[in-house]
Amino acid sequence: MLKIGIIGATAYTSLELIKILLRHPKVIITYLGVRRTDNPKISDIFPSLKNILDLPCTTIDQKDIPKNIDLAFITLPPTVSMQYVPLFTKNGIRVIDFSADYRFRDKSLYEKWYKAKHTDSNGMETAVYGLPELFRDEIKMTTLVGNPGCYTTATILALAPLLTKGLICSEDIIVDAKSGISGRGREPKEDTHYCECNENIEAYSIGGHRHSPEIEHILSIKTHQKVSIQFVPHLIPMNRGILCTIYAKPKNVVAGSTLSLLNEEIFELYTKWYGKEPFIRLKEEQEVPRTKDVANTNFCDIAVKVTENRIVILSAIDNLIKGASGQAVQNMNVMYGFDEKMGLL
Amino acid sequence: MLKIGIIGATAYTSLELIKILLRHPKVIITYLGVRRTDNPKISDIFPSLKNILDLPCTTIDQKDIPKNIDLAFITLPPTVSMQYVPLFTKNGIRVIDFSADYRFRDKSLYEKWYKAKHTDSNGMETAVYGLPELFRDEIKMTTLVGNPGCYTTATILALAPLLTKGLICSEDIIVDAKSGISGRGREPKEDTHYCECNENIEAYSIGGHRHSPEIEHILSIKTHQKVSIQFVPHLIPMNRGILCTIYAKPKNVVAGSTLSLLNEEIFELYTKWYGKEPFIRLKEEQEVPRTKDVANTNFCDIAVKVTENRIVILSAIDNLIKGASGQAVQNMNVMYGFDEKMGLL
Amino acid sequence: MLKIGIIGATAYTSLELIKILLRHPKVIITYLGVRRTDNPKISDIFPSLKNILDLPCTTIDQKDIPKNIDLAFITLPPTVSMQYVPLFTKNGIRVIDFSADYRFRDKSLYEKWYKAKHTDSNGMETAVYGLPELFRDEIKMTTLVGNPGCYTTATILALAPLLTKGLICSEDIIVDAKSGISGRGREPKEDTHYCECNENIEAYSIGGHRHSPEIEHILSIKTHQKVSIQFVPHLIPMNRGILCTIYAKPKNVVAGSTLSLLNEEIFELYTKWYGKEPFIRLKEEQEVPRTKDVANTNFCDIAVKVTENRIVILSAIDNLIKGASGQAVQNMNVMYGFDEKMGLL
Amino acid sequence: MLKIGIIGATAYTSLELIKILLRHPKVIITYLGVRRTDNPKISDIFPSLKNILDLPCTTIDQKDIPKNIDLAFITLPPTVSMQYVPLFTKNGIRVIDFSADYRFRDKSLYEKWYKAKHTDSNGMETAVYGLPELFRDEIKMTTLVGNPGCYTTATILALAPLLTKGLICSEDIIVDAKSGISGRGREPKEDTHYCECNENIEAYSIGGHRHSPEIEHILSIKTHQKVSIQFVPHLIPMNRGILCTIYAKPKNVVAGSTLSLLNEEIFELYTKWYGKEPFIRLKEEQEVPRTKDVANTNFCDIAVKVTENRIVILSAIDNLIKGASGQAVQNMNVMYGFDEKMGLL
Repeated sequence: MLKIGIIGATAYTSLELIKILLRHPKVIITYLGVRRTDNPKISDIFPSLKNILDLPCTTIDQKDIPKNIDLAFITLPPTVSMQYVPLFTKNGIRVIDFSADYRFRDKSLYEKWYKAKHTDSNGMETAVYGLPELFRDEIKMTTLVGNPGCYTTATILALAPLLTKGLICSEDIIVDAKSGISGRGREPKEDTHYCECNENIEAYSIGGHRHSPEIEHILSIKTHQKVSIQFVPHLIPMNRGILCTIYAKPKNVVAGSTLSLLNEEIFELYTKWYGKEPFIRLKEEQEVPRTKDVANTNFCDIAVKVTENRIVILSAIDNLIKGASGQAVQNMNVMYGFDEKMGLL
Repeated sequence: MLKIGIIGATAYTSLELIKILLRHPKVIITYLGVRRTDNPKISDIFPSLKNILDLPCTTIDQKDIPKNIDLAFITLPPTVSMQYVPLFTKNGIRVIDFSADYRFRDKSLYEKWYKAKHTDSNGMETAVYGLPELFRDEIKMTTLVGNPGCYTTATILALAPLLTKGLICSEDIIVDAKSGISGRGREPKEDTHYCECNENIEAYSIGGHRHSPEIEHILSIKTHQKVSIQFVPHLIPMNRGILCTIYAKPKNVVAGSTLSLLNEEIFELYTKWYGKEPFIRLKEEQEVPRTKDVANTNFCDIAVKVTENRIVILSAIDNLIKGASGQAVQNMNVMYGFDEKMGLL
Repeated sequence: MLKIGIIGATAYTSLELIKILLRHPKVIITYLGVRRTDNPKISDIFPSLKNILDLPCTTIDQKDIPKNIDLAFITLPPTVSMQYVPLFTKNGIRVIDFSADYRFRDKSLYEKWYKAKHTDSNGMETAVYGLPELFRDEIKMTTLVGNPGCYTTATILALAPLLTKGLICSEDIIVDAKSGISGRGREPKEDTHYCECNENIEAYSIGGHRHSPEIEHILSIKTHQKVSIQFVPHLIPMNRGILCTIYAKPKNVVAGSTLSLLNEEIFELYTKWYGKEPFIRLKEEQEVPRTKDVANTNFCDIAVKVTENRIVILSAIDNLIKGASGQAVQNMNVMYGFDEKMGLL
Repeated sequence: MLKIGIIGATAYTSLELIKILLRHPKVIITYLGVRRTDNPKISDIFPSLKNILDLPCTTIDQKDIPKNIDLAFITLPPTVSMQYVPLFTKNGIRVIDFSADYRFRDKSLYEKWYKAKHTDSNGMETAVYGLPELFRDEIKMTTLVGNPGCYTTATILALAPLLTKGLICSEDIIVDAKSGISGRGREPKEDTHYCECNENIEAYSIGGHRHSPEIEHILSIKTHQKVSIQFVPHLIPMNRGILCTIYAKPKNVVAGSTLSLLNEEIFELYTKWYGKEPFIRLKEEQEVPRTKDVANTNFCDIAVKVTENRIVILSAIDNLIKGASGQAVQNMNVMYGFDEKMGLL
């Protein structure tokens, strides 16, 4: 049994991670690290875990990192995470990190957007971007995964085939993203107050959301071209779920191709890319992705619709599962050679 | 035009109060007092007021109370309110106070439940309980109103006729109350976090909610008997609205009276009490009060259903309107001899 | 007092219309027409109206149209409406129609999208598009208004200044629209079932929504150029509110103009267009439109944000008020020379 | 592998049942029966099942009942179910029935409340009430289970210990129940319309809900006394979850017993009853059951709070899991000697 530690155990993502790991036949949770110092049982923080996992949380001490674990999931915030990750890796403990700290291959880009000096260049260089559908082979070989976030997962998976095939203009892409409130984290703030969120929808971080450069960065690397997106996220009054509505301009369309022919061609392209992927489901014809269909699952549902002006790609995930903890377990499965679906269906 | 000051202008109740007062033809808002010191415009705090009321807020200074107002609505929390109220009244400014500080006629009862010494005995003695349906004559004559809260309004209005008529046991009453989240106030806390409230229902303060002694106190005074209730409030995932489901044991039922006869008798009783009240609507036969029917209104919808074991009384209000700001304006209308419905329909 | 009839009184839009008209000092509702034949009181259909308007509804008979009214608001569905409108107009009764039947100036375009022959060419030709901010002068003179719908109002108001000024490409516009569920009407269907809508977001009618040609049609006429939009609507789990996020490509930008200069220039442009409009509010700098700020109001909140790739325009309205009934009353005010804000603040 | 048929596969409860059974290592779903005749794949009805279970549904034919199954879960409505159940049992197929048709041991009581003649007296007599915590031994031996509903499960589990021990008056019990909308079923109706449910709470079936006699019936049988309850259910704007707030009058309290002593005694009583139950969790001291803690689980969370006037018992379940499909699988596990938790954690 793989011994698992979770560092940052009080996050919403950690709750989901725990629920998934408890169903996984090859692992055991042995350590729950927190920054607070009152050492609660995890089931006091999340009463839904009562009688299921009543393990006490331990205050993380940078000078006394737990050594009796095989794999650490780190759910700390960006810029905090990199203070802990090297402490694990240098002890031979593998790490799957949920923050942005190990998702960039370009230090200056990270430092520009996160307004902090990156203190673990080494880790940054060896880390692999944890999107199994695109980086499975690299994940198999690594000991440090930068686990992608929710907006990035939904967007990159939706765009990779069209960009790689060169069917859309890589610098004229609009991503209109809608997220449930859990994406905002567990801290009570004005913008997570029930009465401010309920019966409301609003955009935020227009033209300046940190996920935007990450998406461009990874897609540029993966598809070998400059990718530039216009990204606008919105808060939706629901607990969980992300829907990305993506507008791309067709390119290199064969002359005389009708909309319906192009639709078919693209469906075939996506089927070729994702038809055997265990966690991607392609929607046909009249179907659309709905966040309720992927809620509490590791699926990413994708539809591509060709209209007169644009190719519209829709992708839906559960932000806490395929957008965080489910994907992390999928990465673990890949890293350790387990069945990739283990614990996730 | 009556010059109005609102002290505690950033509360949700103040927003509703402002909206109502802006529609009222006899008043003008001239002063918005806050405890914070950054002097924002009220429309920066509540963007829904933009272009409607862009008045700047003033930091309240106990040594420099505004004197150029006729009436102050005070929406400060209990135990804070009584530090300000006398400063207004001694300057001849009338006050409608939203806290519990002027709702009790028994100082020790207040001090027991609010765990604080009451510092304005004078005010406490002269204050009138601002429930116009029961204390209209007193309100007409007073300069200081203790404006009742949401649970108390819904419960007292529902029970007063049956208790006065002696048709139910006054010490065997159960009030199961359900409230929207705005009843919790505007401060972000764990229990107002969207993800904690949404898709959830839970009870709180079982056997120890502060509204319980207030309800018993007022009903005992008004109906001349010892009234004792079992009160359990619940949080419901909606912004606004309160529904009280009240279970009372029949008493003094005429021998041979059938359920349907009793139903009729009680409907007549309520019609006699409330038939001419502008803000109470009685539900007939198969109808039930719904919070959505009273949302954004000053109505209290009431139904009485006689079953085999109990008389069930249902009452619904908007907690921010009839349970706070609407009622406060209704009190103002009564105090100043305006049409009682003015600004409220 | 203007005598008002509402034809199609059981729609959600009719409920809102009634509430607004009841506050309007110059009108009286005298007739409520319905297609059902059981003649309920309107307050039996909408219990929130109890004791406020208990008028019985009358079954509409095409052979016996009410003549004792001055103005008819018709809230029937498209293709049904045009069967009734001429019956009123030929009797000298003015009409404000909520359907699409009188919103097009191009018969074939209407017939293509509504898949029905238009049977009132005369009405179609004389009707005025009821968006006061753009067609105020025409509305003043007309007896028949085609009242625009929710998506169209939000989109047209957002785009008109930029298109007129020629600052954006008129054929490269993306409108990502998000609507509350009340936009779907009052009929119970699978896609209005609470459990299907709640905790869900999904797109619909991609590339084929009927509001798309209407928006293009009106904007083309008004701004004298071919306008072409990519329109994708989404259903959001909330009762009311629409947010349109619009992505436009800058054009004719003065060389050397920085983002912040362009931002300023555009803000000035919108201020010039809308600064004196009673129901349009422009958001500055960090502010964004939120549906909760316009809920239950006739406001349209608009923000324009210039980013590196696109001009992003955000507009929020209450779909039932500025997107339907509030706008209809605003039109009525313009038609009859009342203060345009009357009944609406 | 046990071969499973589900009869009535399009119900919300069937979706949950399928999800649970797919995780169960000892069973395989081989038959999905429906009353509609268009033979859709189950994943067309519930897109969340796509790529997980794409089995086509078969129209149920009373003359051609599937024989190649071992166990049938029947999720048809009451009075319909009894037309199918005997067709299975007489072929040696075991049945777990979700309707009320096999939950009563008193035919006349059933017929009074369901207004239909019961056509399978035989089945009624042999059926066992499927609440494992109270009837485990009988369930082990039976071939036909009447699976209890959501309100009944939450209420009976909450009250059984106190009633059996004789600590509360058995005829003076009030059950104020709150349910999410999925309890209303999947059919679109006015009272499941999003806009009618959202931002609303209302009571229904006051004094006449069918679960009331079932609760009294089962508790009377089990605790050997006449049990009489006042039951009022309410609809809450959330998808799933039930909270019952139960008010009972103490009886036989030892003289001199303080509230805190009684609290302790009762906590011990519940611990004795339920301490080893895999799906009951007792809440201590300040904790309360929350529907969000039991959502998507088979747990029933219970708290007992002694106050001055009443013993308040709170119980929360997921209406679709412990209130329907999870409990059905728990019953299956008991019937077949599987680990009772199998598939359910």
